[in-house]
Amino acid sequence: MKDTLDSMLNPSSVAVIGVSRDPTSFSYTYLSIIKKCGYKGSIYPVNPRADCLLNLKCYPSILEVSEEVDLAVITTPRKFVAGSVEECIKKGVKGIAILTGGFAEVDSEGKKLQEELVNQAKERGIRIIGPNCLGFYSAPANFDGFLSGFIRKGNIGMVAQSGNITRSLAFPGIKRGLGFSYIIELGNRADIQFHELIRYFRGNDATKVIALYIEGLNDGRRFIEEVRETTKIKPVVVLKSGRTEISARVISSHTASLAGKDEIYEGAFKQCGAIRVENTIEFSSALLALSQGKLPKGNRVGILSEGGGDCALTADTCARKNLIIPKFPLDKQERLRKIVPEIGQVTNPVDLSRWEKQPEVAKVMLDGDAIDGLIIVGGFAGWDFLNPDVAPEVEESARKMIELISKTEKPVSIYTYYSYEKSKSFDILRQNNVSLFLDHHDAVNAMTALMKYNTFKSKMEGRSFQTKLKVSPNLELFGKEQIPGKMIPEHQARKILEEYGLSFPEYRMAENQDEALQFAEEIGYPIALKIISEDILHKSDAGCVKLGLNSKDEVRKLFDEIIANAEKFKKNAKITGVLVSAMDTEEGVEIIIGALKNQTFGPTVAFGIGGIFVELLKDVSFRICPIDETDADEMIRETQGFPVLTGIRGGEPVDLKSVRKTLLDVSKLLLENPQISQLDLNPIKVHKIGLSVLDARMILE
Amino acid sequence: MKDTLDSMLNPSSVAVIGVSRDPTSFSYTYLSIIKKCGYKGSIYPVNPRADCLLNLKCYPSILEVSEEVDLAVITTPRKFVAGSVEECIKKGVKGIAILTGGFAEVDSEGKKLQEELVNQAKERGIRIIGPNCLGFYSAPANFDGFLSGFIRKGNIGMVAQSGNITRSLAFPGIKRGLGFSYIIELGNRADIQFHELIRYFRGNDATKVIALYIEGLNDGRRFIEEVRETTKIKPVVVLKSGRTEISARVISSHTASLAGKDEIYEGAFKQCGAIRVENTIEFSSALLALSQGKLPKGNRVGILSEGGGDCALTADTCARKNLIIPKFPLDKQERLRKIVPEIGQVTNPVDLSRWEKQPEVAKVMLDGDAIDGLIIVGGFAGWDFLNPDVAPEVEESARKMIELISKTEKPVSIYTYYSYEKSKSFDILRQNNVSLFLDHHDAVNAMTALMKYNTFKSKMEGRSFQTKLKVSPNLELFGKEQIPGKMIPEHQARKILEEYGLSFPEYRMAENQDEALQFAEEIGYPIALKIISEDILHKSDAGCVKLGLNSKDEVRKLFDEIIANAEKFKKNAKITGVLVSAMDTEEGVEIIIGALKNQTFGPTVAFGIGGIFVELLKDVSFRICPIDETDADEMIRETQGFPVLTGIRGGEPVDLKSVRKTLLDVSKLLLENPQISQLDLNPIKVHKIGLSVLDARMILE
Repeated sequence: MKDTLDSMLNPSSVAVIGVSRDPTSFSYTYLSIIKKCGYKGSIYPVNPRADCLLNLKCYPSILEVSEEVDLAVITTPRKFVAGSVEECIKKGVKGIAILTGGFAEVDSEGKKLQEELVNQAKERGIRIIGPNCLGFYSAPANFDGFLSGFIRKGNIGMVAQSGNITRSLAFPGIKRGLGFSYIIELGNRADIQFHELIRYFRGNDATKVIALYIEGLNDGRRFIEEVRETTKIKPVVVLKSGRTEISARVISSHTASLAGKDEIYEGAFKQCGAIRVENTIEFSSALLALSQGKLPKGNRVGILSEGGGDCALTADTCARKNLIIPKFPLDKQERLRKIVPEIGQVTNPVDLSRWEKQPEVAKVMLDGDAIDGLIIVGGFAGWDFLNPDVAPEVEESARKMIELISKTEKPVSIYTYYSYEKSKSFDILRQNNVSLFLDHHDAVNAMTALMKYNTFKSKMEGRSFQTKLKVSPNLELFGKEQIPGKMIPEHQARKILEEYGLSFPEYRMAENQDEALQFAEEIGYPIALKIISEDILHKSDAGCVKLGLNSKDEVRKLFDEIIANAEKFKKNAKITGVLVSAMDTEEGVEIIIGALKNQTFGPTVAFGIGGIFVELLKDVSFRICPIDETDADEMIRETQGFPVLTGIRGGEPVDLKSVRKTLLDVSKLLLENPQISQLDLNPIKVHKIGLSVLDARMILE
Repeated sequence: MKDTLDSMLNPSSVAVIGVSRDPTSFSYTYLSIIKKCGYKGSIYPVNPRADCLLNLKCYPSILEVSEEVDLAVITTPRKFVAGSVEECIKKGVKGIAILTGGFAEVDSEGKKLQEELVNQAKERGIRIIGPNCLGFYSAPANFDGFLSGFIRKGNIGMVAQSGNITRSLAFPGIKRGLGFSYIIELGNRADIQFHELIRYFRGNDATKVIALYIEGLNDGRRFIEEVRETTKIKPVVVLKSGRTEISARVISSHTASLAGKDEIYEGAFKQCGAIRVENTIEFSSALLALSQGKLPKGNRVGILSEGGGDCALTADTCARKNLIIPKFPLDKQERLRKIVPEIGQVTNPVDLSRWEKQPEVAKVMLDGDAIDGLIIVGGFAGWDFLNPDVAPEVEESARKMIELISKTEKPVSIYTYYSYEKSKSFDILRQNNVSLFLDHHDAVNAMTALMKYNTFKSKMEGRSFQTKLKVSPNLELFGKEQIPGKMIPEHQARKILEEYGLSFPEYRMAENQDEALQFAEEIGYPIALKIISEDILHKSDAGCVKLGLNSKDEVRKLFDEIIANAEKFKKNAKITGVLVSAMDTEEGVEIIIGALKNQTFGPTVAFGIGGIFVELLKDVSFRICPIDETDADEMIRETQGFPVLTGIRGGEPVDLKSVRKTLLDVSKLLLENPQISQLDLNPIKVHKIGLSVLDARMILE
């Protein structure tokens, strides 16, 4: 049996509510495109002032339609939308697409109205796409309810949060060869969310590649869960805007979504194996390559060209993208040399120095296991448009290449500068779904997307994501007095962190000078003193932290100084005590581990290397809790500063396992204690063996 | 009077030597294209076995042509090239384009032959393009000697070192609207060089924009000189391959040029104001924008779109490229609000939320001084192809936009996803030379190129580059015993550096322990000891550097240790003495200044910040000597680590002027002493006021 989403996205019958009689109007055009594109189901235009539109019988209300209606599309002005939805509910439609705008994206009144509509429908199990959307396209249903009329059928399922961005794929993209199973524009995302459609596409046979344009997510955790499961079997490519502040401003005013911090999104995409692209050309190219369905087994590429300049430019981009261009073994070079003239190159890149025999050379390059994918750049095919006399040979060459491409299991990307022209050889390639890219760089980008997916796919095997969060605070550990926004006194924070396996240099809480002296002697010098006071958040700035004390005298003197400084900082500051701590004098590297509760994703954990990496280069990696060992390792390794941990310039490598363990411990802490809103362990000193946390700040939600 | 280059590039008569009778051959096709493209001068095919080719009288030899011949194009097989050149010389042609390959790019025999040909011709003042090239195109002469037949006339003068790369511009590029004054492919660059053609284009009225594809340069200094002069009046855009090692390998095997280190090329391009692009799409886009001839006065852009998604993606790219999107003043917002509906945005980006009235909105955005350029993205024009009923309005909108664009002094970049389709509104735009870009990112890139050129142009005002280098070594300063590859003993290097204004902490050369003790006392503690021995290059590794000595006893003990370690490192190591130096205990930031003689550019100077910036991030800037104050300042500021010098996290800023002065001093030193091949001042400690060099290594050529 079809589920609701399935019935809605592949409707047997559609009512379009509010179709105008004006042929230049949006709604009339919309209806005409559905009809023109060969939708086979029943179409019921609803307009009380017309009997017939586009040769279709009109109904004064959806309630007058006697047959079942799977999908209702509402295009009426905002003030009539509520009434229309009510009628749709009465009629018992499966789903509604509300194209009308003017809801949450405009004002609070619109937001309220939108919530009411959705709640009404939800109660009856009716799903809504939109409002403020362009509708959707469904290839299996031959249904172009997307105001296009030009979409090409294919295996890409796309979900987007902007109609305009889908147009960059559905117009230029289609010209480049993209074909779609579905295109769904979510508009305000009042009901149906990204993760539901991702799950739907995962189980949908018509869809082999999933494309997402995201401005913001409502439920980041479900998104990660669904993408992670999907990546195991189908690639997910995502374009996300809002990297920058100004762009985030535009988005939040535009679709009423709250764009999260981009670093956190970046971490989430890595965590679930989504392939992130930066612009619509990269987006199209990745989709075009992935929709061919062939994956490289590794990241070694062959480059084939007519000329050295093309080889050089392509090799530059490959190196930047970490693709390897292996030098061919001698026997392969010898085989190539039999075809490639003396002035050409056979080592890889292969510079054939002429257009003839390209399929033969490509075959030798692809044979065996020397490369995982082939990039052909420069002057392949198309030569017939310059010199019609050679057309038969060029066309034959195109045919041979198609045969080769269809037989090989390895992906082949082609860029040829002639492909912008009309020629029979290109028609042959295009009719056989050969991917042609826009330039060297673009062809390499496409291959990179394939190689990324190959990695992500195997990386996700056997891993899943825990979506559910604990909601009740842990009273036992934190005590009953949990004040929102309150910073937990450091000695208490330390106790909590110790429960989760984190370790500190030996320390005690001293309530007076005598105790401080006693503890210092017991711990052994050098020691540090640090005030614990809820009135002093920035202890160092207040002069209430003293490091490297070496004697009883120093402890006595500086204890008094700390107390005096606290009093200076705030009159009658409430002082809980002074932390007496051993100094960590062992060699090591300082790192920072933090945690932050995020509106979109819930608890997140952050990692960075101390000093200029975090402070100047903003070199921090994020992941969403819970993380597993693979996540933790990736967080550590993806920072620019990573080599510092493995020892540069003869330095000793530090204990990466203990860093990984600490990240996992922090992730567990955040998951089990939802009341924590922020945690800074800064710095943590990582040694050759083990690590110790030198300062901890924990703030409640 | 025309000079030789001018006569050659705009020939009144052309002989094509070695034209085959086979219509599928390269040479026959080449001749037919020259003829087809309407060349108005005389054409003389040379083929001893034909009377007439393509209705043109054939000659058995160029010597049989009775009229003057400006240009000879040689397409004969390699073995006949020498004979052909000889005949051309006898005939007294102005220039020769040798299309035939198989010279320096193949083997040493080919290289020798190539040199002989060029020398022969040069003696008679005859210039050669190639060998191993595709020839050239000249719009002023209507001459398509470039095997194309499809080049569009325009104002871009292009010089390239690969025929294939020019095709990426001449085929896809022309489809995008690029037009060329000249396209010259230099092949092996045996005679005519980049800098000569850059100078030619500078004075050439038909050329407004200069495009270069470079794999390697023969005379980097002349290149810098000519580009620097040219940038003052015309933009120069450069695509350079060979960023990576593998690509450099391909290049050197391909056109026999030795690719220099990319960092040095990068520095050279910055120094002369060339706009560097990364791939052929960026290349086309920058040229397309620059060929319009309108420059922004600053880097503030307006963004106009139909929808929020387009605004957001565009804003993301702008932020990454450091373009500013200023919020509009309230009066402009009010004016916009009169046209933009409630659901749209008027702050900038402007989200019009519909396609109507775009020219009206664009006009308000461009009025006054709020922005320097306008980027229109998303759904402009083309709507007529979706709904023919609105065609009149859409076409009117296109016409209004053209009028606006032609009147405004500000550049306008447009990306519209409909532009891949056929519609009358686009025909109107294209016929009026409106630049259409490939996506949001591409439109922003194009605007960025304009803004870069605006900066470079004003930056080059009044500055020139000293090309000539001194060749004789400075014997007075260095002594007569100059051994190539020799490292100058540090105490001597210090003396030389002091002559050029560099300063060190106080130091003396001690020849024995007693002297070391005496000097230590005189200088004052703490001091450092460092061996001076030509047998010990890496002093620290050998245990022959001791830092922070605080007493006579320490000096005595560690002096002995140094001598013992030297002996351990190399038996009977020749020890000149031990440098006794004050320790620089003042706070400061460690930087590195270096110098390196480069085959392509001559002496270069390098700057970096010590520690992880140089060691891990390879964060080093290069320039070619001599540098001026502007160059030095840019070198300092372009490093990632620059903020460390201005003080991060409350640190004090250090003395940038002294860093600048040191860079200038080093540049002068290198220029005046051509025998220096390498110099490392590492580290230099920069203080709040002044700096001191802590270690100096100088190696002779």
